[in-house]
Amino acid sequence: MLKVAVLGATGNVGQIFVQLLNGHPWFKVSVVAASERSTQRTYFESAKWRQTTPIPEDVANLDVVAIEPKAIKDVDMVFSALPADVARKTEENFAKSGYVVVSNASAHRMDPDVPLLNPEINCNHVCLIEEQRRKRKWDGAIVTNPNCSASVLTLPLKPIYDKFGINKVVVSTMQALSGAGYPGVASLDIVDNVIPFIGNEEEKLKAETLKILGSSSNPADFKVSASCHRVPTLDGHMEAVFVELKREAEPESVITAMDNFVGEPQRLNLPTAPEKPIVVRREDDRPQTRLDRMEGKGMSVVVGRVRKDSVFRGVKFVALGHNTIRGAAGCGVLNAEYLKVKKII
Amino acid sequence: MLKVAVLGATGNVGQIFVQLLNGHPWFKVSVVAASERSTQRTYFESAKWRQTTPIPEDVANLDVVAIEPKAIKDVDMVFSALPADVARKTEENFAKSGYVVVSNASAHRMDPDVPLLNPEINCNHVCLIEEQRRKRKWDGAIVTNPNCSASVLTLPLKPIYDKFGINKVVVSTMQALSGAGYPGVASLDIVDNVIPFIGNEEEKLKAETLKILGSSSNPADFKVSASCHRVPTLDGHMEAVFVELKREAEPESVITAMDNFVGEPQRLNLPTAPEKPIVVRREDDRPQTRLDRMEGKGMSVVVGRVRKDSVFRGVKFVALGHNTIRGAAGCGVLNAEYLKVKKII
Amino acid sequence: MLKVAVLGATGNVGQIFVQLLNGHPWFKVSVVAASERSTQRTYFESAKWRQTTPIPEDVANLDVVAIEPKAIKDVDMVFSALPADVARKTEENFAKSGYVVVSNASAHRMDPDVPLLNPEINCNHVCLIEEQRRKRKWDGAIVTNPNCSASVLTLPLKPIYDKFGINKVVVSTMQALSGAGYPGVASLDIVDNVIPFIGNEEEKLKAETLKILGSSSNPADFKVSASCHRVPTLDGHMEAVFVELKREAEPESVITAMDNFVGEPQRLNLPTAPEKPIVVRREDDRPQTRLDRMEGKGMSVVVGRVRKDSVFRGVKFVALGHNTIRGAAGCGVLNAEYLKVKKII
Amino acid sequence: MLKVAVLGATGNVGQIFVQLLNGHPWFKVSVVAASERSTQRTYFESAKWRQTTPIPEDVANLDVVAIEPKAIKDVDMVFSALPADVARKTEENFAKSGYVVVSNASAHRMDPDVPLLNPEINCNHVCLIEEQRRKRKWDGAIVTNPNCSASVLTLPLKPIYDKFGINKVVVSTMQALSGAGYPGVASLDIVDNVIPFIGNEEEKLKAETLKILGSSSNPADFKVSASCHRVPTLDGHMEAVFVELKREAEPESVITAMDNFVGEPQRLNLPTAPEKPIVVRREDDRPQTRLDRMEGKGMSVVVGRVRKDSVFRGVKFVALGHNTIRGAAGCGVLNAEYLKVKKII
Repeated sequence: MLKVAVLGATGNVGQIFVQLLNGHPWFKVSVVAASERSTQRTYFESAKWRQTTPIPEDVANLDVVAIEPKAIKDVDMVFSALPADVARKTEENFAKSGYVVVSNASAHRMDPDVPLLNPEINCNHVCLIEEQRRKRKWDGAIVTNPNCSASVLTLPLKPIYDKFGINKVVVSTMQALSGAGYPGVASLDIVDNVIPFIGNEEEKLKAETLKILGSSSNPADFKVSASCHRVPTLDGHMEAVFVELKREAEPESVITAMDNFVGEPQRLNLPTAPEKPIVVRREDDRPQTRLDRMEGKGMSVVVGRVRKDSVFRGVKFVALGHNTIRGAAGCGVLNAEYLKVKKII
Repeated sequence: MLKVAVLGATGNVGQIFVQLLNGHPWFKVSVVAASERSTQRTYFESAKWRQTTPIPEDVANLDVVAIEPKAIKDVDMVFSALPADVARKTEENFAKSGYVVVSNASAHRMDPDVPLLNPEINCNHVCLIEEQRRKRKWDGAIVTNPNCSASVLTLPLKPIYDKFGINKVVVSTMQALSGAGYPGVASLDIVDNVIPFIGNEEEKLKAETLKILGSSSNPADFKVSASCHRVPTLDGHMEAVFVELKREAEPESVITAMDNFVGEPQRLNLPTAPEKPIVVRREDDRPQTRLDRMEGKGMSVVVGRVRKDSVFRGVKFVALGHNTIRGAAGCGVLNAEYLKVKKII
Repeated sequence: MLKVAVLGATGNVGQIFVQLLNGHPWFKVSVVAASERSTQRTYFESAKWRQTTPIPEDVANLDVVAIEPKAIKDVDMVFSALPADVARKTEENFAKSGYVVVSNASAHRMDPDVPLLNPEINCNHVCLIEEQRRKRKWDGAIVTNPNCSASVLTLPLKPIYDKFGINKVVVSTMQALSGAGYPGVASLDIVDNVIPFIGNEEEKLKAETLKILGSSSNPADFKVSASCHRVPTLDGHMEAVFVELKREAEPESVITAMDNFVGEPQRLNLPTAPEKPIVVRREDDRPQTRLDRMEGKGMSVVVGRVRKDSVFRGVKFVALGHNTIRGAAGCGVLNAEYLKVKKII
Repeated sequence: MLKVAVLGATGNVGQIFVQLLNGHPWFKVSVVAASERSTQRTYFESAKWRQTTPIPEDVANLDVVAIEPKAIKDVDMVFSALPADVARKTEENFAKSGYVVVSNASAHRMDPDVPLLNPEINCNHVCLIEEQRRKRKWDGAIVTNPNCSASVLTLPLKPIYDKFGINKVVVSTMQALSGAGYPGVASLDIVDNVIPFIGNEEEKLKAETLKILGSSSNPADFKVSASCHRVPTLDGHMEAVFVELKREAEPESVITAMDNFVGEPQRLNLPTAPEKPIVVRREDDRPQTRLDRMEGKGMSVVVGRVRKDSVFRGVKFVALGHNTIRGAAGCGVLNAEYLKVKKII
């Protein structure tokens, strides 16, 4: 059993880390760290737990500590749910202090020597850790998971890319409120509304998708154009995807490729790996955000409406994934499981 | 002052017709017709008015009559807000009886001899009426307005098509609940949810867009691919649009073209014509569904986030329009105004 | 293992019965019955499953049969999720045919010889079955559970009534959409809205509360006044309750009475009985509908904000319960468990 | 034409003041003041206008100034939309500097020498200004309007109190999001949720109701008990009200009393006074929050479901009012109109 710290444990993604790690067979949360104003109190007092499952009792009673290596004792690794601006320096400090940091923050995702893992797709990118340690001269490591919308998009693209090749991807997202953290989007801004803008999201979605689907040294070489929108749903990012294929393919072949897709986490039988990373629905009106976001305990991406595209030589479909599980904390936990099996932690 | 009948007057679009025609300078609702179960009662009793403006008093007291030419006396023209299945035969009967039918129903929109008008774009298509009368041997006429999502899409495409040419359009819609009529979408189906399917909507959006932007005899020749989604908003369809241009253009030129666009309704100063059919917003986060849907009294389409597209040689942007005003009853009223000026009614 | 039929199995409460009985240690759904238009198809095809848990596979493949005793073979008891109008005759027919019918329908709830059970409170009312059988000359029986808002209200009232006596109760409800069944409330009627009316709800809430808290032969003798409102939440009825006590009591004593309350289902350790029928929260802002409705797997009522009342000699508080679990199918299953232990089925 | 300043002009209620004063026949906004971080910019830049009507152009171009008397030049009176903590000192400073401050803030509402006006009810309380000036030795004055929920409750209570007397009032509120200001309630906290707590609201609702319905020197002497809840609506507070009358009355007499009620603002024909301060609806299911909140341009309270109460010797009903118009800025503007007519400004 490894003892772990969660940095930024009181925020929304931090709470999901605590929720998912509750009862985990390999990891036990023994330290929760948060910003100044949360310390000197128990996790119960400072977190104002907002999840629909009860707060794990053992974590509830932990004292919240400051987010710095010296405040943290006796842990084997660190999960980071820090905001990007805080994350940059802080995660480096932890890596310097010898910790493996499994991070959901965007700060280091695009660093060339930092693995950006959606583990069914590119867990082989962990090879970057060696380079990272050499260049940065630290014993720890930083390993990141993708932005929530990229986590969802890349899974169904992977079997398509492998089997048929991809020239172009156009994607429009309908993203949930929890993607903006807490307090995040004001209710007055979103009830009966759509906001057609999420800061930096389109840039991240493009860059991260290409890094994840590329080799450890080179991004994939297709084109991506995104339009990102906030809609009034609590959890679950829906994405309308149009793909131009390199080699022509019928929708049925694309479905088969998705349906059969598994990755290393499935082969290694990792505790958080869903049985099927991609679940394809045949009904006209599925996936639906509220009904399907918890598929595979929130770790599967549900794809539907796979059909011919009349503009591209290709297919279009919708994909839905849980943004704070597959798109954040759940992906982080799966990364950590992979790192443990590979003896990196 | 012309006396008009509204067919399907108790439904959602029917109510919007009654609302928009209240106080209209040229038209006065003197007959309201609805299905069997609504007749024998006043409009007040059968409509169960659901709008936020009060029910017009003179219409409230009208008796609801059956939807057939013989039940309707002393009116100069007819607005149809009938469901598609009822509309086909019924509208033909009214045209045979000599009425000009200005219809929001989809039944006849794609008939080659029926004008499908988004009047700023293609009011010259009224020339089809002559052919229609000749072929169908009737004195009346059927004139239609587009499906709600096509009404919104075609306006910003028009100046782009004219100025730069279009090869391809990819569009993802986020459509409001009122687009499904009343009772329409069950609340249990849409609170905290997105439904990525609207029956026949993608087909209509494609076919109608090409008919509207084509000549009166031939559809436009570019490609359109759509993905249509229902989101939890009351009114206002948001659309994420990606356009491949024939001739390269900077976003700024596209904005200028949209900004300067006016059509016949503006030149003729028709009562329902908005000053600007297309309003371009420069802020990052506009248009927003709830804040901007009433722009131009619901008759303007609001465009925002015009930017370069990295997949196409072209631009991407979002467009928002009020689906029951510009996308339904308002467009119908504007059509009728044009027909009156042209002495067709 | 008893084989059971679910009548009205495709409706919303019917689906919750199927969901809750999945994996039940004592009951197995072997027949699903629904109205004509659903028969001749499998449950999978006709139910259009709308729950967030997957449809139980064995039930999915059952053929839907008609709602009549002769269509149903080899079952030991019957759950009824029928609409009130259909339920009256149908449930009587099943009881005549020898079945014990555990019903969520309102049709027979107020019949003097029919037990209306919220089982932690008044399972002793099962004694009415004897009278029912004698008077109605049937071998079966009808046993009902309360209306959803009465299920929630009566639980916290029970320990208060026993310990301090009650003179008057004033209650305002904020009820969820699923209480109206499916399709139920139109989305256009409830997004950004409150509807201050639910047909017959105030009458039911009053009459059922008094029957449940009374003896098997006489209703309780306090006064109840209710105002019922529909709010835009999916599941969970919130109720603001003001109680005039017979004997003065501090809020703290009332909390203690609620906190210590258990009933026969807890003593008998029935599978669906929550550990605590009433969970009292101390925070200012709890219970909250979305966060707390699943307390005790949806079988607990969560009470909060217990405070002195300045108008009555008494207390006020808010109570929240899951309307389709504690308030419908869950209560029905708990009733059936009690009947089995008592060897009535 | 009087020149006015709006303090706290960029907040939600501040924006409603600016919106309502646009085109006002007597008042013209010539100064907008806001906290430090908004100054040095135009109102357009700092307000981030969030209303569905366009930002008034002349105000948009004003420079935002600091909230202090010396920063404000050449205005005849001041509207305050300040948060309570800032309001206390600041409003006193303005009164000392000779300004009449018409305030929506709670800071001074309960000061015995400060009028708390819901003007149809108690505009005679302006007599307190004399005492205020004498005691506080200032030439200006502070005049307040009630908390949003008290504004709505007191209107229908007034004719009841006058005609039948009141012993007790029990009220449960279902309050809109805009009542919490901007950003106010986080969307993650309220989508698909009810929060049964609003800080200090129950205390304010009770105390203010009694002050408003009392004489200028003594509060009314009945009892009030409230339970306040936040529901997912944008604007409009719905309140379920139970009233014990001093003298028995049939619902019909209560309706007549409400229906006939007018106050000084109606007799003086003030610009913002609604024709009917109380609109009674006879339908079972009205008022509804979204459909009826704009009755009387948001200045009327809509009452429905007036019926006998079985617990009290009295009546129960629901009342709906627009919380940022009748319940905040609109009431303030009406107060200012009254003060002008009375030559206090």
